[in-house]
This record gives sequence, structure tokens and C-alpha cells, in this order.
Amino acid sequence: MAMKRVATSAAGALASPPGSFGSSSALIRHLHASPGSKKIVGVFYKANEYASMNPNFVGCVEGALGIRDWLTSQGHQYIVTDDKEGPDSELEKHIPDLHVLISTPFHPAYVTAERIKKAKNLQLLLTAGIGSDHIDLNAAAAAGLTVAEVTGSNVVSVAEDELMRILILVRNFLPGYHQAVTGDWNVAGIAYRAYDLEGKTVGTVGAGRIGRLLLQRLKPFNCNLLYHDRLKMDPELENQTGAKFEEDLDAMLPKCDIIVVNMPLTDKTRGMFNKERIAKMKKGVLIVNNARGAIMDTQAVADACSSGHIGGYSGDVWYPQPAPKDHPWRYMPNHAMTPHISGTTIDAQLRYAAGVKDMLERYFKGEEFPPQHYIVKEGKLASQYQ
Amino acid sequence: MAMKRVATSAAGALASPPGSFGSSSALIRHLHASPGSKKIVGVFYKANEYASMNPNFVGCVEGALGIRDWLTSQGHQYIVTDDKEGPDSELEKHIPDLHVLISTPFHPAYVTAERIKKAKNLQLLLTAGIGSDHIDLNAAAAAGLTVAEVTGSNVVSVAEDELMRILILVRNFLPGYHQAVTGDWNVAGIAYRAYDLEGKTVGTVGAGRIGRLLLQRLKPFNCNLLYHDRLKMDPELENQTGAKFEEDLDAMLPKCDIIVVNMPLTDKTRGMFNKERIAKMKKGVLIVNNARGAIMDTQAVADACSSGHIGGYSGDVWYPQPAPKDHPWRYMPNHAMTPHISGTTIDAQLRYAAGVKDMLERYFKGEEFPPQHYIVKEGKLASQYQ
Repeated sequence: MAMKRVATSAAGALASPPGSFGSSSALIRHLHASPGSKKIVGVFYKANEYASMNPNFVGCVEGALGIRDWLTSQGHQYIVTDDKEGPDSELEKHIPDLHVLISTPFHPAYVTAERIKKAKNLQLLLTAGIGSDHIDLNAAAAAGLTVAEVTGSNVVSVAEDELMRILILVRNFLPGYHQAVTGDWNVAGIAYRAYDLEGKTVGTVGAGRIGRLLLQRLKPFNCNLLYHDRLKMDPELENQTGAKFEEDLDAMLPKCDIIVVNMPLTDKTRGMFNKERIAKMKKGVLIVNNARGAIMDTQAVADACSSGHIGGYSGDVWYPQPAPKDHPWRYMPNHAMTPHISGTTIDAQLRYAAGVKDMLERYFKGEEFPPQHYIVKEGKLASQYQ
Repeated sequence: MAMKRVATSAAGALASPPGSFGSSSALIRHLHASPGSKKIVGVFYKANEYASMNPNFVGCVEGALGIRDWLTSQGHQYIVTDDKEGPDSELEKHIPDLHVLISTPFHPAYVTAERIKKAKNLQLLLTAGIGSDHIDLNAAAAAGLTVAEVTGSNVVSVAEDELMRILILVRNFLPGYHQAVTGDWNVAGIAYRAYDLEGKTVGTVGAGRIGRLLLQRLKPFNCNLLYHDRLKMDPELENQTGAKFEEDLDAMLPKCDIIVVNMPLTDKTRGMFNKERIAKMKKGVLIVNNARGAIMDTQAVADACSSGHIGGYSGDVWYPQPAPKDHPWRYMPNHAMTPHISGTTIDAQLRYAAGVKDMLERYFKGEEFPPQHYIVKEGKLASQYQ
């Protein structure tokens, strides 16, 4: 029977009775921190000269989620860095004695089993945003850590961004933009493959919170909407969006002019869009993926873009992140890629900063988090990660 | 009392009784063409190597709207060119004896009063698409010509494109794309001015066919929607979109985070967004204009983008078109410009080609056109151009 490090204050409100764990590999450890003072490390992207350009820019190292004064006034230690990789990194230095690690999907602090083993005081892993796949969730569960996200904080941000990317691809925006900046004017070079979105078949692979918001926003475009998920939506939402359920993913794919990936990265979804699956799609298919880069087989996507089987690919997620300079998606034809940005608009930052603050406050008080925020709790993974 | 050149066959079904004209400057001319055979000239953009890449690419010189065989089999002469400017151009050569001129807004054949004077056989000016401001409509009316567009043919295409441009600006897409292609990764350099569309105030200046389709598509984004037009929409449509009527344009402008221009170019709207009017807008306002370039004061827009008063400007319309290499909008900061493309998607081309064919068929038979297609009829301009 394993003792676990529970994400709670000394009050221990989150502690489950021993025996509620499934994992036999959980480590036996004790809480070292004093009840009152916690060491909290935040890993964010650095803003440098951009930090001062917007008072609401709280999601960067300099903004530090806007919680520095609040944390330090309560006697907590708050270290913020963007230096997250390798044995000499700032993050690594604090691994042995931090209690809470706040990280984001945009500049992910990869929390490996090895780091978890070293982090003897660690209790709570908070994701400022959505998507905790940068954490070894099974190792976190085995170690009795709590992992939580600010569920819902940026679903609108991501859904909007997906619709933008659909339109950019369908309407062939980028070749036109290139002409504008290079002094060219060749309408034909754009128009020969520019289409209306109206009347096209759009399929979302995954219709969770983001997928549903996307379907709602697609509704007035008069498309043929399809969705694949583990479960059918409730009939009311299905009626509202007009989307049709496709139980069999491989039966849905060949019907789609546009495919949007809206699944979390899990052991089951990793690499699921490989060469074989891409081959099942329509020739010229357009793909939008703001979910996670590793859901795709990187080289298979690049090859299919080069051959023209994929007519356009847009997304803001890569593996790894930051994407190296030689990542093939930077060079493949007909892409509309950006760094990982869709969930970190200023509006989203304000929401997930508030969500993180709320969870820290509850953690200090020994209170439960909103149930939808838990990714790992009491040794168990949230259903979407199972 | 003027005799007019009516857009009709020898059957003269469209001919109005003499005296139905308002214009005193109408020229007295006779129809020179034989009843059966007409000389039709089409001015389109040239596709070159792109022509063969899509069988539905009918809107270019090579595609010739897909009506060549149909026209020649009936004994008509059909000349198609992209060479439209100056005294030695192909178009100029045919001006003296053409009966019908088909042109588009994407590669506009500027039909001046001088050309109309020279075009002694001209009866009918057809715009393949929407927007006939490249024609001197008053001169056309005075000469008794008929001008008609394929009203509705690309309104969906343009509205979709406008929503794409709104999202591209609000979410600061292009700096992210530049990073992806240049090997960079700097989320902060995008995020500091990336926002959700949700909750922002979007105002459309003009809520005709395109403006209304845009409002419908904006509805699920949970924005604050405003519109200015000559007339209030009917209450049902207002309820459906949730958009609020703003009678006074200058009172609406300071409220808007995003302004979309959706008015035709007329004597009244030419240059209406000048330095003074732009100054009334919110600092950092985003502007989308797929209507006509000349509605803006070109230099005032470029200056306001440089100063940051305009936070982003996107559109596909310029003056003149093609835009010269030194057009300031190619170089101003935070633009997302393209050549004139939004109304010439493949879907739109198929619709306006069908609409042109239908009107030619009616013209040969001496039948009326669908009433909403007329821009100039019997010496009078359609209401939106008055």
C-alpha cells in the first residue's frame, strides 16, 4: 500500500484513505514542506520587449500570471522561468524542493517520470491552460500527485482559431498575402484552388468542449458537419449544430473535405494519423490541428503535403515545442503553421491566470478544486486521458 | 428626347417607350449589329499555368466563363482578353464594334465615358460578379446602356472571406506564420496582441446582402454586433443576428473594436474613410474592407497603420487594380492584404458564369433579366448607386 503526496495543505482535505490507489509503483514519501510556506515554480514563455506592451499580458515569465505579489505576501516562494530543458536548467535546479509546478502547453515543461522521482516535495502540477500531456500522467498518478488544468479557460480561443485556419486553407489566403507583400498581382494563382467553405464537408475528430464550440461556430456556414467521438452528443446539441455522428473514424475520413483534430494526446491518439490513415482521406484534404502535434506522424504529414494528397495543413501544435528550426512542417508546401498560440490570447491568459490563482487558493486552504479541472487525482487519470 | 441603345435582341423586349429616360445627355445612336450575331468581349484575368489545374476554373481568360462553345455555336463572336488598359490594348481595339462587354471586379475593365462614346454598338455591360463601379454608370445611363451584375453570385464568398480576415487580425495570425517559416519560435511576440473575437464589438458599415451574411456568421462568436446603413433591417433579421442599428455612422465608429466596410463605391462613399473619420475610431481598431479600395483614403490608412491608430487592416480591394508595386498598402505595418480574390472562389466563378450565361440567353431572346441584377436600366441607376 502506498502513501501518496496529496495536493493539499496540511489540512489534508484532498487526502484519500490509504488503499484508494490502483498503482503499486507509487513511491512512499513524506511531505517535507512546512504547512504555511510552499515553493511554487512557474514555467512560462519569456516575453522580453513584448512584456511591457500590454498590461494584460500575464501569461509570460514577466507577467508571472499576475500572482507574484499575492503569493509572496502570504510567505510563499514563487520562482518563474522559461529555462526548462536539461540538467543545468533553472527548472531542474528547483525540482528537488518545489511543492507546486505551474506550466503551460505553449512552452511545455516536460515533467518526466525521472523528474517526478527527483521532486520529493512535489504535490501539485497545475497547467495554466488546457492539455497536460507534457506531464507523464501515469508517473504522476503512481506518485500520488495531483494534476489539474484550468478546464474551459481557452476552449473558445482555440475553437475560434480553428475556424480561422479552416478559412485560411479553404480560401487559399496565404498565396494572396505573399503576392501583396512581394509586389505581385496574380489572381489566378490564388483562385484556381480557392473555395467557399459553404457546402463543404467538415469532420471533427473529437467533439469535446472545443469541438462542440467549433461546430456551433460552423453552423451558419451551411457545411455538411460530421463528428467522431467515443460517445454521441446529446440530441439537443446535435440538433443545434446539425452535426452527424460517425462512430467509425475510418469511415468518416474519406467523406471530409476538411478534417479538424480535437482530441487530447494520449497513448491511444499518439501518432494515430499515420501514413495509412492519411491515405484514407480525400485527395486534397485540408487538415487543421490545434490539439497536439504528436497526434500526427510528423513525416507522414510532410510527405502527404509534398505529394498533394493533403491540400493544406494548419495548426499551432508541434512536437517537440519549441519546434526546432529544421522541423519539416516549417518547410512543407501549403502549410499555415504558427507557434503554439491559439490558447494563449490575452483573453485566455486572463482566464487561466484567474483559474490558477483560484486553485492555489483552494490548495492553501485544503479545499477541493472544481471537479472538471482534475487530470490526475488520487492516483487516477481523468477519463479523456485513459 | 433621346433614343437609347437598349440591351436586348432585335425583338426589343427591353426597349422602353421613348421618354422614359431621365437623362438629357443621352446620345442618339442606332443599333448597328445584325439581329442574329453579336460581338461579345470578355475581360478576365489570365491564368497561364494555373488554367489547366482545375476544370472548374472558368473565371479566367482561358476558361472564358465556359460559354465559348455555346456562344460560337449560335453564330456570335466571342473575344476574351486580359489586355484592358490604354489605346493599344486588345479591349480598345474592339470598343468601336462590340455589342456586349463582360467584365469583372477582379481585373476591372474601366469603362469610361470616353470609351462609352466610342462604343457605338454597345448595348449591354455585364459584370461577372458584383460591383460595377469600374463602369462610369452615369455615362452608361446617359447613353441608354444596360448594366447588370450577377447579384448574389458571390455574397457568401465575400462574407466568409471577411470573417476570415477579422479572425486573422484579431488573433494576430501573420506574425505567427512568419515565425513558422523563418525558423523562429517566440509565442510572446504574437500573444501580446492576440485576442479572442468573443466579446469584442464588431460594426459593419453597410448591411446589405454581404453585411447580413457576415452578421449571421458572426452570431455564434458572442460579439457585440452593430450595423450602420441607410435603413434599419427588418426586425426578424435584426433579432436573428442580434445586431443593433446605428443611424449615425460617426457615433458607431468609436464603439467598434473591428470595423467591416460593406458598401458599394459610389460618389458618396468614395474616400469616406479619410483622416478625420479614421481619427474618430478607437486606437488600435481593426479594419476589414472587401468592398472597394477607393472607399478609403489610401494614404490616410497607411499613415494610421504606421502610427498604430489602426491596429490591423485587411482586405482584397485596392485602387487601382491591379495594385501597382509601390502601392502603400503593400508596405504598411500590420496589414493582411491580398489581391482581389474573395468573390472569385471556384464556387463563385461557377455561379457568376451561370448568371452571365442566363442573362446573355435572355438578351438574345429579348427577355427581361431578374430585376435584382439591373444596375443601370432605362437610364436609371439602381438605388444603391444613387
